[in-house]
Amino acid sequence: MSERLQSKPSNDGYRMPGEHEPHERVFMVWPERCDNWRLGAKPAQRTFVEVAKAISKRTPVTMVVSASQFDNARTQLPSDIQVIEMSSNDSWMRDTGPSYVVDDNGNRRGVDWGFNAWGGLVDGLYFPWDKDDQIAQKVCEILGDDSYRAPLILEGGSIHIDGEGTVYTTAECLLHPSRNPDLTKDEIEKLLCDYLGAEKVIWIPNGLFNDETNGHVDNLIHVVRPATIALTWCDDETDPQYTLSRESLAALEAQTDAKGRSIEVIKIPMPGPLYMTAEEASGIDAADGMEREAGERLAASYANYLISNKHIIFPLLDPKTDGDMEAMFKRMYPDHLITGVEAREILLGGGNIHCITQQIPAV
Amino acid sequence: MSERLQSKPSNDGYRMPGEHEPHERVFMVWPERCDNWRLGAKPAQRTFVEVAKAISKRTPVTMVVSASQFDNARTQLPSDIQVIEMSSNDSWMRDTGPSYVVDDNGNRRGVDWGFNAWGGLVDGLYFPWDKDDQIAQKVCEILGDDSYRAPLILEGGSIHIDGEGTVYTTAECLLHPSRNPDLTKDEIEKLLCDYLGAEKVIWIPNGLFNDETNGHVDNLIHVVRPATIALTWCDDETDPQYTLSRESLAALEAQTDAKGRSIEVIKIPMPGPLYMTAEEASGIDAADGMEREAGERLAASYANYLISNKHIIFPLLDPKTDGDMEAMFKRMYPDHLITGVEAREILLGGGNIHCITQQIPAV
Repeated sequence: MSERLQSKPSNDGYRMPGEHEPHERVFMVWPERCDNWRLGAKPAQRTFVEVAKAISKRTPVTMVVSASQFDNARTQLPSDIQVIEMSSNDSWMRDTGPSYVVDDNGNRRGVDWGFNAWGGLVDGLYFPWDKDDQIAQKVCEILGDDSYRAPLILEGGSIHIDGEGTVYTTAECLLHPSRNPDLTKDEIEKLLCDYLGAEKVIWIPNGLFNDETNGHVDNLIHVVRPATIALTWCDDETDPQYTLSRESLAALEAQTDAKGRSIEVIKIPMPGPLYMTAEEASGIDAADGMEREAGERLAASYANYLISNKHIIFPLLDPKTDGDMEAMFKRMYPDHLITGVEAREILLGGGNIHCITQQIPAV
Repeated sequence: MSERLQSKPSNDGYRMPGEHEPHERVFMVWPERCDNWRLGAKPAQRTFVEVAKAISKRTPVTMVVSASQFDNARTQLPSDIQVIEMSSNDSWMRDTGPSYVVDDNGNRRGVDWGFNAWGGLVDGLYFPWDKDDQIAQKVCEILGDDSYRAPLILEGGSIHIDGEGTVYTTAECLLHPSRNPDLTKDEIEKLLCDYLGAEKVIWIPNGLFNDETNGHVDNLIHVVRPATIALTWCDDETDPQYTLSRESLAALEAQTDAKGRSIEVIKIPMPGPLYMTAEEASGIDAADGMEREAGERLAASYANYLISNKHIIFPLLDPKTDGDMEAMFKRMYPDHLITGVEAREILLGGGNIHCITQQIPAV
């Protein structure tokens, strides 16, 4: 039973839970497009396997995969990872999957946003994106859950939520002319609150430097817990991220959340700066849209981690900073399991562990 | 958790339940191939919708559908029918889906037979059949059930089972050189018993006249209940089915089942004879393999019905006999709901309601 609902989550008593709340399952999409993932996506596939295995220590994982890659994915993945056929245009379940909302009576529903490949015909990363736009509905069908089709172009990675009424996002992305040019900022805020069951939107001006998603908030910050935010920090004045991080800190410190609390900011290290090598770039098919050239600055961030059932799965990106970051996670989440996964191959595709995963809340 | 098991169901204490035992769900595949289904498969799709709706009166239904037909199927089907993307070569879930086995402790597993499109390169109906051969495993993955890959080419419609140790099949199909030419009859019997948890195979010489499946048993008979068989009957001496039905009766009456019981045979009427019209044939794409020509005798049979949770879903095929058949079903199954569905469009594609459905036992 998967009904498409015409009402709105907020009116129905639903809210999106925080990522720290319990998960039933995590969904991922198997990578394969050769104009994004180098060497036929084989190195990325190995990394996705490692991410899935890490998550599955605490949370069951479903990997959706195209028909042509089904046998390969089924063979590469351990048998406790569920593999389900699904077509897609790329492999960013955070952005294409449903944002789930729950009520106080043990019910849940999916929110299926419009998707236009991070900018549609204005500055989208590929064309077409029709299969990606169907993923949220298909996931809800598999789970037997009702869903809302929200009248808003939005990727799941462009919002963070604390589960207690506050949405975090960036103006760079949500007010970008390639998403919802006909809506005002107030109208977008209202839709976010209506479809996430939230009360307040906290705007950060910009995302991470050179992030091709138009500055997704999930590559800059993470909600550690309500009213506590991890923020990617940079102390090198010559780095463009220096000013961007300070702007973000100022925006967070200038506001209180939906519960009226001041926001505590934890500054986390930035890896790198990291760049695409000539060898890496040479393994990627030429195509319009995504820039995959040698020397390109990679939008590398430890904020792009996943919390799933008291387990932190974070990207290992730079030996100079990985150890510091792991030590910080142990302090930030003293009762959590902390697992780092070598994740440069995900970074080369334009995102990281948070971008390739979408949690389904337990109810 | 969907493990591929190397053992055998009989050794593990599993048996295939009879169709009269409780079902959790019924799976179907959305039809679309234009060299089998006329007029772009649109009339067949409408019929599949009606079959799914009928079954769903008593049993939840999952329709699997290709990516390109997903939106259409989702729109045509009521919201209580689950729709899941899956690629296929055609739409015969009985033959491509898993045969489920259960144990006495509330567990179930799928049996995934080899599939070669009713005859492979010898006399198969289409090429390739790779997607069809993956369906059983994909269904088990969706359900989270372990599965056995049986070392036997077999379609689910070529066997009937009573759940109490007896398998019914036809020599025409199971001993056909296009299926398992390297196996003897004894070896095939042993594999059937091993993978269905059965003890005895009852062989009927031939299936229905002009059945392109090489005489699937499910288009000739149905297990009404253990030791009671419905057999398609024909009293017209000039019809080739006349002799075939008498041969079948003799084979059934000459044997006892696995429990040592004599087999009671209920003779059910045969529709028609029915033939493909010129108009019907003209709507089908030309292709090698399937013969879809005006005037072709259709392998029409009421035996091709489904039992699902005390509900009989049977094909309406011929106004001259439909009423008699319905009256007989009411006598054969006095405590069951009886639903007829107009099914000529399924017949034109080469099968009927039993062929397009596969039950998943409740455990």
